[in-house]
Amino acid sequence: MAAKFKGEPCVAYLGPKSAGNYVKMVHNGIEYGLMQLISEIYDLLKNAGGLSNDALYKIFDQWNRGRMQSFLVEITAHIFKQPDPLGDGRLLDKILDKAKQKGTGKWTSQNAMDLGIPIPSIDMAVSMREISALKKDRTAASKVYKQPISESMDAKSLEKLSENALYFSFIITYAQGMHQLTEASKEYGYELDLGTIAKIWRAGCIIRAALLEDITQAYNKNEALENLLLSPSFIPKIQETVDAVRKLVAFGAKNGFPLPALSSSLSYFDAYTSARLPLNLIQAQRDHFGSHTYERTDREGIFHTDWE
Amino acid sequence: MAAKFKGEPCVAYLGPKSAGNYVKMVHNGIEYGLMQLISEIYDLLKNAGGLSNDALYKIFDQWNRGRMQSFLVEITAHIFKQPDPLGDGRLLDKILDKAKQKGTGKWTSQNAMDLGIPIPSIDMAVSMREISALKKDRTAASKVYKQPISESMDAKSLEKLSENALYFSFIITYAQGMHQLTEASKEYGYELDLGTIAKIWRAGCIIRAALLEDITQAYNKNEALENLLLSPSFIPKIQETVDAVRKLVAFGAKNGFPLPALSSSLSYFDAYTSARLPLNLIQAQRDHFGSHTYERTDREGIFHTDWE
Repeated sequence: MAAKFKGEPCVAYLGPKSAGNYVKMVHNGIEYGLMQLISEIYDLLKNAGGLSNDALYKIFDQWNRGRMQSFLVEITAHIFKQPDPLGDGRLLDKILDKAKQKGTGKWTSQNAMDLGIPIPSIDMAVSMREISALKKDRTAASKVYKQPISESMDAKSLEKLSENALYFSFIITYAQGMHQLTEASKEYGYELDLGTIAKIWRAGCIIRAALLEDITQAYNKNEALENLLLSPSFIPKIQETVDAVRKLVAFGAKNGFPLPALSSSLSYFDAYTSARLPLNLIQAQRDHFGSHTYERTDREGIFHTDWE
Repeated sequence: MAAKFKGEPCVAYLGPKSAGNYVKMVHNGIEYGLMQLISEIYDLLKNAGGLSNDALYKIFDQWNRGRMQSFLVEITAHIFKQPDPLGDGRLLDKILDKAKQKGTGKWTSQNAMDLGIPIPSIDMAVSMREISALKKDRTAASKVYKQPISESMDAKSLEKLSENALYFSFIITYAQGMHQLTEASKEYGYELDLGTIAKIWRAGCIIRAALLEDITQAYNKNEALENLLLSPSFIPKIQETVDAVRKLVAFGAKNGFPLPALSSSLSYFDAYTSARLPLNLIQAQRDHFGSHTYERTDREGIFHTDWE
């Protein structure tokens, strides 16, 4: 029997051609992003907050009862409790930090680039699995570079900032994946209904999360929504939580905690909400060295300059 | 006549099959990264430092006389001086901030993912060109989100931090591209000599830079160098400049300046120099939901657990 969410079935016909497989691929890309984000928050709570596995269990279990309710947060809570079957302590602490991949995250990133849709949080999750595999190099590098002296952070403040940051960056990651689906639907003629996709993702899949109920509603209200960041129901959720991400990214940068997906989510947000970006300079450089032309802010047309 | 560098020719036979084209593709990926980094530093100097185009010209011209000497820094200096042919002021301020691309950066990123080599600074440069193209969405988003109140930064401190940060992140970007070439050479049988490649890049191409002399020497000293970050001659260069990047990334995160490629370069460095990453949690999650197995830190083998 197919999974149900509050009595509603969680399977649906998604569209013609390879639509179903494509949606599953992007599902997995989002999954890569969410898993990487959780691992970064785990690192901060454990190493900056000094929290034990038992304390981490309580925090994730608590989060799973609120707006962060999701399969991945739920199993993460359980993981902190799992004893090591081959010795003392918890299994998690004995697991090697080399993450494998089966390719679906990579395909999502590669295809997004073909579509011209930015999904940097997912790209970064792919990169981090690759860096994790370079264990020998990392170990060698860790011996020759001095780490900055890390400040610790009060565990209670860190816990609150972390929940906000995770909520923010989950939204950003879903937004990137949904944006990719929107463009793929146009490009490949998939006739996707994003409300339906978010709806079927609410149960029976790895990225199921309470957030998907809000995403379903956002797309049901506006089928032509370009990006979740422009949905009136998401604006306050993002606005209220972005400050926590600013604080954690700044803390991580100063203290040498790599927070690549969290940073990428913030960069995406800050760039996406910038009416003006400094890429006018890139267009100037391209016209300078390659006569690639540029557009202007004050009139229509394509221009080229013989640079001095 | 082919370009020469101090009397040495800047062309060479690079290897069998498509080796030459491949090297040119990665050249362009690195170019994307360097251009994005320069644009981020430009944004900071202009908008956090309050510097005029004339002041920016002086700074970049100065940098071009030191260790940052490079074609891209040189033309950037000139760009700040270029008058607008159609009106008052400088042309740069009238150029639309939508950066186009011809695809070589994208191909570099897509192929790096096939090889399993992390090049997040280049990936992010590709994403930023894509975000820049979403001008209509960005303008809409800028109106509904409150920007954080930006602190300014003393222009002299900012100038010094910026030179250090640019030097650091240029090294990281070259390191990523060279790493990709190393792996591609093995995978595709290109028989590449990385010292020769860095040598021919010293003149006649867009990423030519004083740094390439040091890179040439690093690979000539150790042909089997896995990554520039492990080269004894680069360790002090990186160690001395990383603190500036930490400060700028923290400043950008707090104040809403998107510094995506700079942040990605720092994340790459911090992850690459971490003996232990939190991706043990990702392996635990993968084994929990998909029985994908994991390795252990304390013994050889492949393990699976029936998670509670």
